[in-house]
Order: sequence, then C-alpha cells, then structure tokens
Amino acid sequence: MDGSGTRPAPPVHPAVGPLAYLLGTWRGQGEGGFPTIASFKYGEELQFSHPGNKPVIAYSQKTWKLDSGEPMHSESGYWRPKPDGTIEVVIAQSTGLIEVQKGTYNAEEKVVKLQSELVANASKVKEIARVFKLVNGELSYVVEMATHLTSLQPHLKALLKKL
Amino acid sequence: MDGSGTRPAPPVHPAVGPLAYLLGTWRGQGEGGFPTIASFKYGEELQFSHPGNKPVIAYSQKTWKLDSGEPMHSESGYWRPKPDGTIEVVIAQSTGLIEVQKGTYNAEEKVVKLQSELVANASKVKEIARVFKLVNGELSYVVEMATHLTSLQPHLKALLKKL
Repeated sequence: MDGSGTRPAPPVHPAVGPLAYLLGTWRGQGEGGFPTIASFKYGEELQFSHPGNKPVIAYSQKTWKLDSGEPMHSESGYWRPKPDGTIEVVIAQSTGLIEVQKGTYNAEEKVVKLQSELVANASKVKEIARVFKLVNGELSYVVEMATHLTSLQPHLKALLKKL
Repeated sequence: MDGSGTRPAPPVHPAVGPLAYLLGTWRGQGEGGFPTIASFKYGEELQFSHPGNKPVIAYSQKTWKLDSGEPMHSESGYWRPKPDGTIEVVIAQSTGLIEVQKGTYNAEEKVVKLQSELVANASKVKEIARVFKLVNGELSYVVEMATHLTSLQPHLKALLKKL
C-alpha cells in the first residue's frame, strides 16, 4: 500500500460510472482558428483517469506541432460529475489561465456540454465553452472562446481515438 | 514525431533552468492538521515535468491514506517561473478549488515561496500559502491555509524523496 500502482484498481465511484467511457488515453489531431489568429493544426493527447473512491475524474491534455512535435498548449484539472446529470470542471492552463466550467452530461448520447462560469488570470480570454461527443467510438470536441475583442465562437476542434 | 515519447527530450527552457532541480517524481509522507479538523498523516507523490520549449513546469500531486492506500486529495497545474525570480503558479484541486499563486524563488537556496492571489470555487478556503525547500536533497513543503473561520496557519507539511 505505497501508492506505487501495485495495489488493485479501486472501484469506480458511482458518480463517475456514467462517464466511465471517457477513462483512458485518447490521441489524435485537431485544428484551431479564430478571427484574430492564423488557423493551425495540432496533435493532441488527452487523458482521463479516475483515482477511485472519489467522485472525480482527473483530466490532462497536451498538444504539439504536427511537423516538429514541439509542445504547444497543455492543461489539466478535474471533472466532477453529479448524479443529477450536472457536472463541474476545473482547469488550469499552461498559459496561466484558470477556469471553472459548469454544464451537463448525457450518459446515453455520450455528450458533455460545458460553459465557463469563471475565467481568471487571463488578459484576453473572457469565456470558454466545450462540447465533447463520442461519435463511432471516437471522441470529438469543439472549444468556443470569447475574448475582449471577439464574441463566443469556434476556436478548436479535434477528433481523438482511444489508445 | 507523434508525441509518444519516442522523440528526444526537448531542451529545458532558460526560465525553467533555475528550478530544474525540481523536475522528476517525488514520494514521501506528510501530516495535516487545522484547528477545525483532526490531525492526519498521508502518503504523497508529487511530479514536476517540463514539456520543453515553454517556460512552464507541469505540476501534479496526489495523496493517499497510509493504512489503506485509499486516494485522498489530488491537484495539478503549472508553475511559471520568470527570469527576475518571481513565479506564478496555477492549480486546480480535486475538490473543485482553483487558485492563482504568486511568489518568488531563490535558485541558490532552493526555496520557493508562494501566496495565493486568487482562491475561487471554494466555500470555506480563503487563502493558501506554500513554501517548498530542498533540504539535504529532500523536498520539504509547508502549506498554510486561511478559511472563513480561521486565520492563515499551518495545514500540511511533508518530506519527499526523489525517485
């Protein structure tokens, strides 16, 4: 019992069960754009893990340039689903931005919709929305963003396969 | 160049150099207490990793009960050191709390001092301070906390060895 991973996997918390399809490592490609920047493509790895016992999913994500593999963005945090179908997500970004997202999940349609309740420590970003959908076994997401200059609109989309 | 870890490690960003001694995985034990709770001991693993190229250190931490190995707390985020000796740290906690910490580091004495600038999405916690010190090759930290009922005072301390 030393936390070294030799103990058996703890049971999945009931609150996490409806989102257990997310657990694991996902990898794929995405593309980004916004009225104020040139569009770009990226590679991405996204990980959902469940510490067990707690009603929490740990989330971490990193992206890289497709040509060079050079690291780009990363972010990490926690997904906190509730039995009533609502969910709270807290995220720290490598840029220094932190956010609280609130939303809902639909376990049958395998869709999670999130909208920022708080975005802090960011000079330009004012609002972030994320939708994750499982489509034919692949995880797709769309991230929308609003800045001090631009209203909420698509910023990122990606399609990821489970490893 | 697929992000799978087969490419050579990217160079350490100059801003991260003074804190490169932190990079790696640390494990050990800690103890916690506060006027409003019973004191407790815990096992902990703490990881600092550097994505390369960016002036950022990724941080993640988890704790478990010493007797059963049952997961307790976890948190993750990013340390953003600046060449002038100041540092900004953003953290998301498994409890839903998010925080922005500001502080300083001393590369010679291997001490990092952090104080919350923002604590959000928490009902009781109002303020968090952290001091990390390297002592005889071991990483020690002290976390102080203030709540709506109690002024800033020691909450956690731990001593960790690098794996």
